[in-house]
Amino acid sequence: MVKLDTLSTPALVVDGRILDDNLAAMAAALPGSRCRPHIKAHKTTAIAHRQRNVGHVGFTCATPREMRGLADVGLGDDLLLANEVVDASLLTRLADLDPPVTVAVDSDVTIEAAADAGIRRCLIDVNVGLPRCGCAPEDAGRLAALARQRGLEVRGVMGYEGHVVGLTDRAERERQTAECMGLLARAHQAVGGDVISAGGTGTFDINELATEIQAGSYALMDTAYGALDIPFQRALFVLATVVSVNPREGYAVADCGLKSLGMDHGDPTIDGATVWFCSDEHTTFSTDGHAPLPSVGDRVRVWPAHIDPTVAYHERMHVLDGNDVADVWPVDLRGW
Amino acid sequence: MVKLDTLSTPALVVDGRILDDNLAAMAAALPGSRCRPHIKAHKTTAIAHRQRNVGHVGFTCATPREMRGLADVGLGDDLLLANEVVDASLLTRLADLDPPVTVAVDSDVTIEAAADAGIRRCLIDVNVGLPRCGCAPEDAGRLAALARQRGLEVRGVMGYEGHVVGLTDRAERERQTAECMGLLARAHQAVGGDVISAGGTGTFDINELATEIQAGSYALMDTAYGALDIPFQRALFVLATVVSVNPREGYAVADCGLKSLGMDHGDPTIDGATVWFCSDEHTTFSTDGHAPLPSVGDRVRVWPAHIDPTVAYHERMHVLDGNDVADVWPVDLRGW
Repeated sequence: MVKLDTLSTPALVVDGRILDDNLAAMAAALPGSRCRPHIKAHKTTAIAHRQRNVGHVGFTCATPREMRGLADVGLGDDLLLANEVVDASLLTRLADLDPPVTVAVDSDVTIEAAADAGIRRCLIDVNVGLPRCGCAPEDAGRLAALARQRGLEVRGVMGYEGHVVGLTDRAERERQTAECMGLLARAHQAVGGDVISAGGTGTFDINELATEIQAGSYALMDTAYGALDIPFQRALFVLATVVSVNPREGYAVADCGLKSLGMDHGDPTIDGATVWFCSDEHTTFSTDGHAPLPSVGDRVRVWPAHIDPTVAYHERMHVLDGNDVADVWPVDLRGW
Repeated sequence: MVKLDTLSTPALVVDGRILDDNLAAMAAALPGSRCRPHIKAHKTTAIAHRQRNVGHVGFTCATPREMRGLADVGLGDDLLLANEVVDASLLTRLADLDPPVTVAVDSDVTIEAAADAGIRRCLIDVNVGLPRCGCAPEDAGRLAALARQRGLEVRGVMGYEGHVVGLTDRAERERQTAECMGLLARAHQAVGGDVISAGGTGTFDINELATEIQAGSYALMDTAYGALDIPFQRALFVLATVVSVNPREGYAVADCGLKSLGMDHGDPTIDGATVWFCSDEHTTFSTDGHAPLPSVGDRVRVWPAHIDPTVAYHERMHVLDGNDVADVWPVDLRGW
């Protein structure tokens, strides 16, 4: 077995036991089809296989490549592209997959593009408050009729309360989720179908309307979701090496930075330390007198603020078992 | 020729003429060895070849993979790893390259690691004010003596005024650069050697001490450097497709986001529009009444705030010539 401390850095590392605990906790709370794990959070078929092994057969994807990649490894039983695509060549390749995939549509143009490409199943994507994709709730019925007229099976609706999932106050999260799902319920009445696809890691146990929850971050977690009262533990870090120490100024420099960490949620975290800033290949941090500065060559675990754009930078993730690297998983669903 | 508007999106696109103009402008200002282009900004050997073609033979790298990749394509005449590395296996592979490479060292440990691995040339990396790597200026002479004692050729010093290169006020940039270079000059007196390596795109025509400027961003530029009074034009954008439009709320959604744009310098820019926010695969923007909202299927050019972590997300860049894609260059120096 390879020891963790012998890896060249920066290295993306997942704690395999914590990952499995997170997957088991979700499967207990939302068994089988009640959860449709979102692949965009990890982009790794090895993790999707583990999600399947605990009973989650359907998957949510953000990109055509994620869809094709899952189908290629035998995980294509029920794939949802929870995103609008109008590119004919990409849609045609998705239409060739068997069993048929489901895509989100929210406009005449996206319905026409899907139908023209031979896509057979769709959900009407409804805007429930996040300023992103999704039709106006009152337009959902008209779009469903158009889709059926164009030969598409309309399986139901989706609507993502993405502006709510990160609210730390649970009562406020509950109140706003109920508001959003009120809009989605009305749209669903007009659309019909069995599926109401919604929710995320922050509302997995709050969203009572959804027939399936599109949670992704619960598997690996990050410091942003770590601030919520949810039963998932952070499983993913970037292992870095201290390459420079400045005792006079009271800081040290680790060899991971902007090209190994998604930065939209802010700086990463190092336990027992204060991160000053990240550069392309460096993170400068201090220990603020809580602990002595590390030495050059020491390893540190750098916890990302947002896992999705962090994972997308890495070719592989190393699977930690105790202090050993038990496996290496390719991050094989990157790109588009 | 492939037309730009037929590319699947998101797609990284470089305007080949503007790139060549930028390279020519730098070669005119700092010919030959006066500029040591920093590869980290583009991670693309095809661009390095063009930099070589205008006379820049030596290159600056941030990672061992960038060093090996340049050597592999015949661009290894004079490679500088402007970064501290203590990993024995990575250093040993660099020591095997011919001609010998130069690495930055800033401590006893980094000198010992380089010498143990068989590295033959170094620069003493001096801290000139940016809280990152680099020894205290007054320690540079001692470290140079240690390096020579361990058999390393000490070619000189480097010191990056990274906290100064982005200051928009030119007079302030000049004043602070002079301060930083005062520290580096004193360190150089104690160290000796022919090389004083420093500077960046923002100080390429300000830094008067450096024998070579480590500029990288000038080749492709970004909106952050675009705010400075320097003779380089933005050459790199992410081509995206509008996938959803919300006329009632007055916004549109393009299909590029956090996984195709480095976000540490903030949101990207769309000409004639206001970017609201980016999600994993989306950018929401409005036209604020200056222009009508685009339609689903329209293409937009999204200009990154910071090119380095943007390029690192992409497998390839498409080379624009007019409205045609004249070539596709692999971003072949990603990873570590």
